[in-house]
Amino acid sequence: MQETKPKKAVVLLSGGLDSAVTLAYARREGYAAYALTFDYGQRHRIEIERARKVAAGLSAEEHKIMAVDLRAFGGSALTDAIPVPEAREEIGAAGIPATYVPARNTIFLSLGLAWAEVLGAEAIFIGANAVDYSGYPDCRPEYFEAFEKLAVLATRDGVQAGWKLHIQAPLLHLSKAEIIRLGKDLRVDFSLTSSCYNPSPEGKSCGVCESCRLREKGFAEAGETDPARGLRLSF
Amino acid sequence: MQETKPKKAVVLLSGGLDSAVTLAYARREGYAAYALTFDYGQRHRIEIERARKVAAGLSAEEHKIMAVDLRAFGGSALTDAIPVPEAREEIGAAGIPATYVPARNTIFLSLGLAWAEVLGAEAIFIGANAVDYSGYPDCRPEYFEAFEKLAVLATRDGVQAGWKLHIQAPLLHLSKAEIIRLGKDLRVDFSLTSSCYNPSPEGKSCGVCESCRLREKGFAEAGETDPARGLRLSF
Repeated sequence: MQETKPKKAVVLLSGGLDSAVTLAYARREGYAAYALTFDYGQRHRIEIERARKVAAGLSAEEHKIMAVDLRAFGGSALTDAIPVPEAREEIGAAGIPATYVPARNTIFLSLGLAWAEVLGAEAIFIGANAVDYSGYPDCRPEYFEAFEKLAVLATRDGVQAGWKLHIQAPLLHLSKAEIIRLGKDLRVDFSLTSSCYNPSPEGKSCGVCESCRLREKGFAEAGETDPARGLRLSF
Repeated sequence: MQETKPKKAVVLLSGGLDSAVTLAYARREGYAAYALTFDYGQRHRIEIERARKVAAGLSAEEHKIMAVDLRAFGGSALTDAIPVPEAREEIGAAGIPATYVPARNTIFLSLGLAWAEVLGAEAIFIGANAVDYSGYPDCRPEYFEAFEKLAVLATRDGVQAGWKLHIQAPLLHLSKAEIIRLGKDLRVDFSLTSSCYNPSPEGKSCGVCESCRLREKGFAEAGETDPARGLRLSF
């Protein structure tokens, strides 16, 4: 009997809540998951250690941590001395937040594309969300479609072998509360994840940045308790 | 009188002959040039030192060298233990060479895009060529057009401010001899450039790889002498 090979996916894994749920989702969909984490000079470096634990806990086939120092270019509150905004109100509903990092998803997906081609993977999973972070241009469906088109033109297997790469963003249209409920169904251990944009050197969440507030609100709306909160570490 | 700001461009600079000519071309077109070099684990690391000299010699406004270790993914003779092919004949006229690096130009252009957005640059210049390297999928006009479309969708300034980024590949349809003639017109110091895929640790060119042969043939066809050759370093 011929052994059937599992389908493969690269999963972008930040160590935050959303990408952990995304990894769990990809696993449930039957993908062998190749987790890819970027050390890009983010303030919230505790995420990288969390990503290791999440990848192991959710049985990723392999986990790579790749250094790409986006501080070199600047332009973002997540990598620069620009202050991290404390709440959505400060940003303005229509604006793009100061936490926008120029071309971040394009850079991350491009690196994911390289690994996906080498692996022969069918998809890249990304925990992008267009509800709570609707301001980010590179979290929109039309952006992901454009990237899929580029991927075919950009690669040897796309041009020669009819390889198609799908960008899967299963959380794109979910609220934070819905993401938390999905994660609970998928038995994601939220205590391993870190969401704060601006944690203390010990990894303690600030509790006031946009990401902390969204997480708190999401757990409240989902009627759940954040298990990371009791740990007095990043919640 | 109001001071007019010069138009800006990011120029991808490898330290090889083609990208040096591309930088000189961008300068002649009136761009303030922001040179970007990648240390991606290539065998031909001597290129990076050459890139520094080329950037200084051609009055780049700024020069960044960015580490992105593409060896992490493998799949190429330029970063792996896969042998570098010795001549075009070994590759097969229709094939994509073993020197193809998965998603390389997409990764490089994405990083260039980040810097271009921060700078407010109009263009990224790339020394891609579709004549001698027609096998590479990410050196084709349709690929660059798809990247331009992606760039608008991917960025804050593309979405909010009507920013458009042009991918300029002025060497795309030139033969190596034509590139060398253009470089001579632009007073490029070829002795600073390195083309070998597989140089010795001291930076001496192998003389037999595809890139060395193309360079030698190009100088012969252009009726020029390669000044790097006499230096007994990378030619």
